[in-house]
Amino acid sequence: MKVLYILPGSLSRTDLGTREIDRRRAVLQRLAAPGTEVDIVDVPDGPSSIESAYEEYLSVPGTLVHVQAAARAGYAGAIIGCFGDPGLDAARELVEMPVVGPAEASMLMACTLGHRFSVITVLESVVPSMRHLAHRVGVSEKLASVRAVDIPVLELAKNRERSISRMIELGRRAVGEDGADTLALGCMSMGFLEAHQTIAADVGVPVVNPVYAALKMLEALIGAGLAHSKRAYPIPPKMAAFQVASR
Amino acid sequence: MKVLYILPGSLSRTDLGTREIDRRRAVLQRLAAPGTEVDIVDVPDGPSSIESAYEEYLSVPGTLVHVQAAARAGYAGAIIGCFGDPGLDAARELVEMPVVGPAEASMLMACTLGHRFSVITVLESVVPSMRHLAHRVGVSEKLASVRAVDIPVLELAKNRERSISRMIELGRRAVGEDGADTLALGCMSMGFLEAHQTIAADVGVPVVNPVYAALKMLEALIGAGLAHSKRAYPIPPKMAAFQVASR
Amino acid sequence: MKVLYILPGSLSRTDLGTREIDRRRAVLQRLAAPGTEVDIVDVPDGPSSIESAYEEYLSVPGTLVHVQAAARAGYAGAIIGCFGDPGLDAARELVEMPVVGPAEASMLMACTLGHRFSVITVLESVVPSMRHLAHRVGVSEKLASVRAVDIPVLELAKNRERSISRMIELGRRAVGEDGADTLALGCMSMGFLEAHQTIAADVGVPVVNPVYAALKMLEALIGAGLAHSKRAYPIPPKMAAFQVASR
Amino acid sequence: MKVLYILPGSLSRTDLGTREIDRRRAVLQRLAAPGTEVDIVDVPDGPSSIESAYEEYLSVPGTLVHVQAAARAGYAGAIIGCFGDPGLDAARELVEMPVVGPAEASMLMACTLGHRFSVITVLESVVPSMRHLAHRVGVSEKLASVRAVDIPVLELAKNRERSISRMIELGRRAVGEDGADTLALGCMSMGFLEAHQTIAADVGVPVVNPVYAALKMLEALIGAGLAHSKRAYPIPPKMAAFQVASR
Amino acid sequence: MKVLYILPGSLSRTDLGTREIDRRRAVLQRLAAPGTEVDIVDVPDGPSSIESAYEEYLSVPGTLVHVQAAARAGYAGAIIGCFGDPGLDAARELVEMPVVGPAEASMLMACTLGHRFSVITVLESVVPSMRHLAHRVGVSEKLASVRAVDIPVLELAKNRERSISRMIELGRRAVGEDGADTLALGCMSMGFLEAHQTIAADVGVPVVNPVYAALKMLEALIGAGLAHSKRAYPIPPKMAAFQVASR
Amino acid sequence: MKVLYILPGSLSRTDLGTREIDRRRAVLQRLAAPGTEVDIVDVPDGPSSIESAYEEYLSVPGTLVHVQAAARAGYAGAIIGCFGDPGLDAARELVEMPVVGPAEASMLMACTLGHRFSVITVLESVVPSMRHLAHRVGVSEKLASVRAVDIPVLELAKNRERSISRMIELGRRAVGEDGADTLALGCMSMGFLEAHQTIAADVGVPVVNPVYAALKMLEALIGAGLAHSKRAYPIPPKMAAFQVASR
Repeated sequence: MKVLYILPGSLSRTDLGTREIDRRRAVLQRLAAPGTEVDIVDVPDGPSSIESAYEEYLSVPGTLVHVQAAARAGYAGAIIGCFGDPGLDAARELVEMPVVGPAEASMLMACTLGHRFSVITVLESVVPSMRHLAHRVGVSEKLASVRAVDIPVLELAKNRERSISRMIELGRRAVGEDGADTLALGCMSMGFLEAHQTIAADVGVPVVNPVYAALKMLEALIGAGLAHSKRAYPIPPKMAAFQVASR
Repeated sequence: MKVLYILPGSLSRTDLGTREIDRRRAVLQRLAAPGTEVDIVDVPDGPSSIESAYEEYLSVPGTLVHVQAAARAGYAGAIIGCFGDPGLDAARELVEMPVVGPAEASMLMACTLGHRFSVITVLESVVPSMRHLAHRVGVSEKLASVRAVDIPVLELAKNRERSISRMIELGRRAVGEDGADTLALGCMSMGFLEAHQTIAADVGVPVVNPVYAALKMLEALIGAGLAHSKRAYPIPPKMAAFQVASR
Repeated sequence: MKVLYILPGSLSRTDLGTREIDRRRAVLQRLAAPGTEVDIVDVPDGPSSIESAYEEYLSVPGTLVHVQAAARAGYAGAIIGCFGDPGLDAARELVEMPVVGPAEASMLMACTLGHRFSVITVLESVVPSMRHLAHRVGVSEKLASVRAVDIPVLELAKNRERSISRMIELGRRAVGEDGADTLALGCMSMGFLEAHQTIAADVGVPVVNPVYAALKMLEALIGAGLAHSKRAYPIPPKMAAFQVASR
Repeated sequence: MKVLYILPGSLSRTDLGTREIDRRRAVLQRLAAPGTEVDIVDVPDGPSSIESAYEEYLSVPGTLVHVQAAARAGYAGAIIGCFGDPGLDAARELVEMPVVGPAEASMLMACTLGHRFSVITVLESVVPSMRHLAHRVGVSEKLASVRAVDIPVLELAKNRERSISRMIELGRRAVGEDGADTLALGCMSMGFLEAHQTIAADVGVPVVNPVYAALKMLEALIGAGLAHSKRAYPIPPKMAAFQVASR
Repeated sequence: MKVLYILPGSLSRTDLGTREIDRRRAVLQRLAAPGTEVDIVDVPDGPSSIESAYEEYLSVPGTLVHVQAAARAGYAGAIIGCFGDPGLDAARELVEMPVVGPAEASMLMACTLGHRFSVITVLESVVPSMRHLAHRVGVSEKLASVRAVDIPVLELAKNRERSISRMIELGRRAVGEDGADTLALGCMSMGFLEAHQTIAADVGVPVVNPVYAALKMLEALIGAGLAHSKRAYPIPPKMAAFQVASR
Repeated sequence: MKVLYILPGSLSRTDLGTREIDRRRAVLQRLAAPGTEVDIVDVPDGPSSIESAYEEYLSVPGTLVHVQAAARAGYAGAIIGCFGDPGLDAARELVEMPVVGPAEASMLMACTLGHRFSVITVLESVVPSMRHLAHRVGVSEKLASVRAVDIPVLELAKNRERSISRMIELGRRAVGEDGADTLALGCMSMGFLEAHQTIAADVGVPVVNPVYAALKMLEALIGAGLAHSKRAYPIPPKMAAFQVASR
């Protein structure tokens, strides 16, 4: 079974980016259950990183093209590889296979791990949309706080140690000041640092890595034979009419 | 003072559509307070109508281009002319002038008119996103229900009488079965039918026309000297960095 | 078109008070849209200021007399000029024209300006009733906090600079500690200081002046042809029976 | 120990009313625990019955006079004898003794009896204010519904059998359609019919009589040595200043 | 009339414990209204104290045996003497008489005393379950915070002064930092210290003693002729079938 | 890796029950991912089925013994095989490995599949506890309804066709009347009928089988390297003290 991990931004325009795409694919493949094959694509005309609603919207059309193509190509499911879950509702409208958003998957996993969770993310500019996401997922009652390390996405990996120590610092404050008993890392580039266990060991609470959460939730859905409700995410009416008409 | 009404879909590709654009501009101009001049534009490569999350996303990039251009051209504010308020958060990130969404404006006005309001919209496919909108606006406690007339956007004006009688029928059920004391019409093409007073007279509760609500809310904000919070809708960080760098 | 601004307290008993009434009328008239004429009355046997539930109740009977008289005299709408919105529900029961409460109007405008707003008000004694008001308005999900400057209503104008600097201080704390991105001034005497732009410039977020919000919301409702739902605010049953009987 | 039951309306203007006041006092005295003496007063210039926000406000000033007098006369506590709890917050501001509202007491008792309760009240015109009351009490999560028998207050006792059969009918619908497992009678005149056990036996769920709930809650508070928080209900600031000044 | 106070833990295994049981019975009897006789039992094979969900569950089977026996023996009602209200739902399923939980009773009384209450309890380990309890009771909207003195149950009485001073310290922080205007003591061993008035005098807000609240609420329910809804707490179906079969 | 599925009731007391245990183990093993071995145990002195809070409590002590034994025996995780998730919080206090409750797992999966889900369960007697469960899980905002087929647990498999047709009937009503777009089967004996796909095909929405959800969620947690937060579920304090003392 093959699943597709879609990077909604443009990483393939530089050699460095291409190597990072390869590294991420390898991380995902290592995590995958036996029998799961993970492919990865990016959106070459998407934004270089997503730190605003504006960039989220710019990433969506290209992402949706990949989702539709994956369904036609027989993939068993897809992951939209950004913690903003950009275009997730539209993706689910367009296809029958399960499409997983890392924010949704991480928040649901965080819900089972404790009573209140905090999200540690990159910049203040995305904090409000994280709160809206928690409501869409349906778990806002359990969201203790969203805190930002104040490091742009593209800087996270440049100084890995500083990034980790900032995540630890904010994680401690989320636990001590906001009452969180569980953390989720709110950015895929944070997840691909693979530092969640270091942070968990230091802060003393479980840390949900969105890379892991997204892949494991997708495998769980596929394993349970489930896909998203077409009553919740109906095929766009004019598209449905066209499909009927062209039969 | 000039304000811009942006049609996020493509109406100008046919003569009929062009005439409808002119008609809508005339409606808006007639409603405008003395001293307000209303311009109107559409998004020629946008969807023909918006009845899904998918079409919402497709409409956003072109809409945002108009918003940015309007701000540069000195408009005092803009309205995103779709009841889904597509791209509203991003629009507010990009500019300093107020940008109004008809759903938000209508729901806020409905909140002052009574205790519980219902939205009468076009198709079941947009009902869940209306509920999410009510939460984003912050008024979900007052939302009694969302009901769909089951008439596609592009059919509404073709049989105006049938559309009105369906809106009346669902309005009565919203009042009688869902406990609503106020209605909002959940589609701009419904609003431009200008049938809200007919419906209100029949159902016996106030009916918020989103065309009116959006324009009056925009005038109210401008009149009160207010624009959206840049702490809530910060300029995208990389764009802000670019602006600083290019000074 | 004429609208009536009702001061629910007694200001006209001293020359100083009479001059303040005149000043407030001039402020309102200056703010009004072309074609709107603003009259102002006070409640001579009302309390000298409203800083408790007790004083709110004392102000209501006289306020309601003015509301009824205004409707009979053909006013297009009325504003109850106290941020506690005293007697607003009863006023709407008694008349068909729109009656606006400054707290409701300000909170609804604050909702469109950002994600979370705080109210800056006078004394701790009114803080709980502000929270209840936010719930009645339907927007308690967006209320970040209510903070009191600890200056009685009647002292606000005596030391304008101190009042403004306290409002700025609490506004900064609301933003920094409570997560607000928008402020509303929770007292009409604060509003008539006309310092909202000074505060906004200092704190860096929009500040809703309840004087402006109330007038602009009333003009917006009238402009949109809307009045409050009689299903939400029915005429008192025995009064309705009397009206029917006396026909 | 003496407690005062305040009728916020005018019952003593007719002989019939005076006899009804005596009857109600006798009912209360019969319910009282050993050692509790119940006095009763009405508000002669209050409304003849309370079926609107308007009438609630008219009843408050006279009610508050009685509350203050009772405190000075050494009563151990007071009950505001209307299910709208009119002026309850102000009453608590003015005195140190506990003041109980029947709606609050009934809703709190209903909360312990089951998972979801419904209120059966008189007219549609008071339904929205019951919902607001449930929120003020803090128990809106447990409110299943509010249903009105459509019988004015002053008619309830005229046809006792019809009133009871309507309460039973609506109680059944609250249980069957709204998911209530407990009922509260939402009007003191309903309570003084003393039909709650008949209704409970028929509908099969407990029925909270607000007359009993108010008196028993007041006795419980006094018995536990508790009175309302002055932090929640502070003495009105100017009144407090006056008390300090006059020492 | 006799009521039973059930200690869900094992206190009778030592002489000291037996004397404490006697002391607690005397406290309860002193508080009881004229005509109420209070008996007390413990659960000898229960936990020595309850500071975890684990110990709560261990205490339930023995507690339920006492509840059933009390009903058969003609008691008018029972109190489950632990602030976790362990097994309260099951107890209500098994019998027709009212069964009161001190947490539920205290939280409901706290709701009438102010706008927001805090619970002062023993250890961090029980804080999350207190929050869940507040939701079950239906009053989570009014819960300001839960704070733990960090003293185990069995240590509370050993250094009474230190315990009281810690409760005062946390009470002050609940009021000053969390916005509480009312406190409830979240442990029966705290209640039996009978220090609530000392704490209230120091902190300046009412303090609900769960011993008093439970007994007074039980007396109030019995006095009002009320017992828990069998629709909410139905007799276990197989047990009901058995009862029918054995008639 | 081995995981343990614990039946909290007594099934092994009859041959029929023993065969059913074997069948359930085979179903679980068939579902398991490659590398997962599923063992199964029951609680011989537990209740024959769980249809009340009373029976839940009776099942907990024996269940917790199994959980502790499994942790000592090196299992990677455990499932408490009852949709009431009895004792789940205590189980997580006692061990470091993940312990999954089928209700929690099913509700979280239902959250990702749509906007609103309904639970189809056995008897009315467990409906209120399902609602409480949804709140504990943190997803009550998404719970559309809980509906009962009115068939006792032990009857479900006796007339499989009738059980399935009742589940379909209620599923249709949940979708049509309650607005659900996703269903979850609220009883493990329902799940082991393995009829979820039949129901899904008929009703037209995804149906979460709690057997599948629990196993896949446990595998996902183990695969992501996650276990429950010890800050949320701390080891019982006296037990922790004992462990420290006995080192």
